[in-house]
Amino acid sequence: MRTAIYPGSFDPVTNGHVDVIRRAALLFDRLVIAVAANSEKSPLFSTEKRVRLIQESLADLPGVEVTTFQGLLVDFARAQGAAAIVRGLRAVTDFEYEFQMALMNRTLDGHMETVFLAAREEYTYLSSRIIKEVARLGGGFGRFVPPPVEAALREALGLRES
Amino acid sequence: MRTAIYPGSFDPVTNGHVDVIRRAALLFDRLVIAVAANSEKSPLFSTEKRVRLIQESLADLPGVEVTTFQGLLVDFARAQGAAAIVRGLRAVTDFEYEFQMALMNRTLDGHMETVFLAAREEYTYLSSRIIKEVARLGGGFGRFVPPPVEAALREALGLRES
Amino acid sequence: MRTAIYPGSFDPVTNGHVDVIRRAALLFDRLVIAVAANSEKSPLFSTEKRVRLIQESLADLPGVEVTTFQGLLVDFARAQGAAAIVRGLRAVTDFEYEFQMALMNRTLDGHMETVFLAAREEYTYLSSRIIKEVARLGGGFGRFVPPPVEAALREALGLRES
Amino acid sequence: MRTAIYPGSFDPVTNGHVDVIRRAALLFDRLVIAVAANSEKSPLFSTEKRVRLIQESLADLPGVEVTTFQGLLVDFARAQGAAAIVRGLRAVTDFEYEFQMALMNRTLDGHMETVFLAAREEYTYLSSRIIKEVARLGGGFGRFVPPPVEAALREALGLRES
Amino acid sequence: MRTAIYPGSFDPVTNGHVDVIRRAALLFDRLVIAVAANSEKSPLFSTEKRVRLIQESLADLPGVEVTTFQGLLVDFARAQGAAAIVRGLRAVTDFEYEFQMALMNRTLDGHMETVFLAAREEYTYLSSRIIKEVARLGGGFGRFVPPPVEAALREALGLRES
Amino acid sequence: MRTAIYPGSFDPVTNGHVDVIRRAALLFDRLVIAVAANSEKSPLFSTEKRVRLIQESLADLPGVEVTTFQGLLVDFARAQGAAAIVRGLRAVTDFEYEFQMALMNRTLDGHMETVFLAAREEYTYLSSRIIKEVARLGGGFGRFVPPPVEAALREALGLRES
Repeated sequence: MRTAIYPGSFDPVTNGHVDVIRRAALLFDRLVIAVAANSEKSPLFSTEKRVRLIQESLADLPGVEVTTFQGLLVDFARAQGAAAIVRGLRAVTDFEYEFQMALMNRTLDGHMETVFLAAREEYTYLSSRIIKEVARLGGGFGRFVPPPVEAALREALGLRES
Repeated sequence: MRTAIYPGSFDPVTNGHVDVIRRAALLFDRLVIAVAANSEKSPLFSTEKRVRLIQESLADLPGVEVTTFQGLLVDFARAQGAAAIVRGLRAVTDFEYEFQMALMNRTLDGHMETVFLAAREEYTYLSSRIIKEVARLGGGFGRFVPPPVEAALREALGLRES
Repeated sequence: MRTAIYPGSFDPVTNGHVDVIRRAALLFDRLVIAVAANSEKSPLFSTEKRVRLIQESLADLPGVEVTTFQGLLVDFARAQGAAAIVRGLRAVTDFEYEFQMALMNRTLDGHMETVFLAAREEYTYLSSRIIKEVARLGGGFGRFVPPPVEAALREALGLRES
Repeated sequence: MRTAIYPGSFDPVTNGHVDVIRRAALLFDRLVIAVAANSEKSPLFSTEKRVRLIQESLADLPGVEVTTFQGLLVDFARAQGAAAIVRGLRAVTDFEYEFQMALMNRTLDGHMETVFLAAREEYTYLSSRIIKEVARLGGGFGRFVPPPVEAALREALGLRES
Repeated sequence: MRTAIYPGSFDPVTNGHVDVIRRAALLFDRLVIAVAANSEKSPLFSTEKRVRLIQESLADLPGVEVTTFQGLLVDFARAQGAAAIVRGLRAVTDFEYEFQMALMNRTLDGHMETVFLAAREEYTYLSSRIIKEVARLGGGFGRFVPPPVEAALREALGLRES
Repeated sequence: MRTAIYPGSFDPVTNGHVDVIRRAALLFDRLVIAVAANSEKSPLFSTEKRVRLIQESLADLPGVEVTTFQGLLVDFARAQGAAAIVRGLRAVTDFEYEFQMALMNRTLDGHMETVFLAAREEYTYLSSRIIKEVARLGGGFGRFVPPPVEAALREALGLRES
């Protein structure tokens, strides 16, 4: 049985993340979505809320667990018995940062592989940050996030029903 | 009659911006320079001052208006009856960010085109940020900005006449 | 009245090209699609056939002309009274090559602007070359090209009806 | 049981390829190394020789098969019952090309995932092409290829024992 | 006699920096390592401590001086009689930023050349920022920094001996 | 005394090359311009002619030699007693290829450094290939090359005096 970790801030989870999760779930027996609790940036949603939003968005997906982690990602991955870390790639700047993290993680743990999946073309421009910015400025964002996240974003940002 | 929007922070306007404006003005019947009022970063100049510096720097250019906007860029552009958003490109990292914004804006409004112009080679390294940094550190910056901006920067940063 | 030139090899025209053409046609009064006749590579289709395939694929589009050109692009553009050259951008490597050509063309003719449009996300991976390769290897390519091009490709490559 | 395909020209296999193979073999139950027989470039080694060199270089690796393929990669992958195509990434230009191929392959077969692994840092500069060039110019290349490939390259290029 | 400047924040110096320093020292008669004192970010180590850590890490290297500088880099470089500024390059995003700074510095002082050296492959992923992050999260970082820096980092971050 | 090698095809030398040469000549005591004689592409000018055109274009520059080389660049550089190989960088795609060559050369000879200089902005788009293409298509190319090269290009391409 092979386990993979899909780490991130997920503040909040987007349709781009969900797409990567659904495809990664087909490649590994067990996929652990790991919400980073030690982010230095002040998140919009609490760690627990971010976990719950992912769970609600993936209600039907077997073999996928959602949890939080603190400390070094490779330590968490090793403790989970993971064979690989999964990352989605959208564009070149993504690639460079992700590549550096993958090489660093492999240096910290020579057995930990990083596996990159190409994001779907229509999610090329999506990120949690840009969705929050569009929402704050009054743009429609329902097509970018799962329904539970849309409701949560409206509430967190004090937006009316559209 | 076709209108285009050239949005930005313009804190302050540089010779690189002016070059893009002069060239875009030849391609459209009406060019609206839109100073973003809802920037989260703390700007050096007020929105009004940034508008005025652009106006003073473009005194002789017909068909160009300068204004401010709040909220979502595509909403503003649509309200102006714009056919396109204009952006200058300097380098690859520019390109990726701008590309993502263009795709996002096209998703938010399927009729809003983004049009990229290549910045002149000698402006490849210019940005409002780097000019402010050079000015603060005592470097000569007169060749990078229009004369009204040079005077305003000296005053804002408490610099002596050179 | 403003004219723009959209130059290329178009061997053959793809849905990605058609998308750029339709969007560029909204930005200019007259759009001249210019098929390069002096390409050094041995094309699959003759210059005339490439022109005809574009015409058949754009039957309903007003303000668009299709022609061939020889010699320097800026000379052709100037002779057509063009204000701008239009290019589609798909990715970073595109960008660098296109950027160099734009700067070169501006040096050769200081009044000739190059205008870049972002290709639609679903056309990110499309090129005439890759479509011909997929077709040669027996893959389905009907979704990548206009119907007249699909038929022409089948004939040129000796493929059966699918 | 999950199968993955690692396709390429392998003309000849390098230590960079071997590194990707060893790591991919840990992530899938069965890894099929697929030597492209329909390459248009004139290869240094025949398809059969390239298969044999890979086999000799991987003598000890369970769960790995080496074979050739013709036609469309996704058709071959589907016939093998593969869940994924594996590709190594070295640098940004790699990334863009590989990304386009992955998106194209996903369009051709919506169930075929492409999985990218980061090449080891010391193989960043390695490619079959550059190794053949170094060998032709008389440089030492033993550290870049498995021993069976070193001998085969010497023979193919008419080089003396070092 | 030719002098070169190697400027940076060095908060703290890494093995990647040391590698660039050792190689640059072979190319110039005198190498001045210039610790930027006017950084706006809040550093972990004081300017003086950063200077001392570099000195301790380079105990055996002739022709190398370590000092601090304020104000514009090109002014400092000129005052030192430098012919060149040295920068290490790790990846494409590095390259673009460094390139812009080099062009800006050449505009500010037409005689000041910037010389780029390629970082060693195994340092591709190294930066002061990432090392501090790994250290804070409890990862082993001894292999990334000179011994005096390892001790200083442990003390500054309140970490136990490993 | 330090020697550097500036290698290339120089088919023919451009103003961009001359700019790199003039600046590199200030950084080293001796600069050897090395024209690659073993290029596989069919050059426009013979190796001897390319050497002569460089010599005529640099008539006034002390400390610079022009010669040809065959075989591996690092072997030639070592035989010349060189401390470094000099390369000009124009853009990101340049950077990646050059970086790979620099790492390969350092692997082949651990003591051979590669030193990158940033090309001047106005030469960003220049290459021998693009100049030959412009010249063949009838464009003005006098501003891109030294006078002796302009004359030689006219003759080689059978062009009239402009």
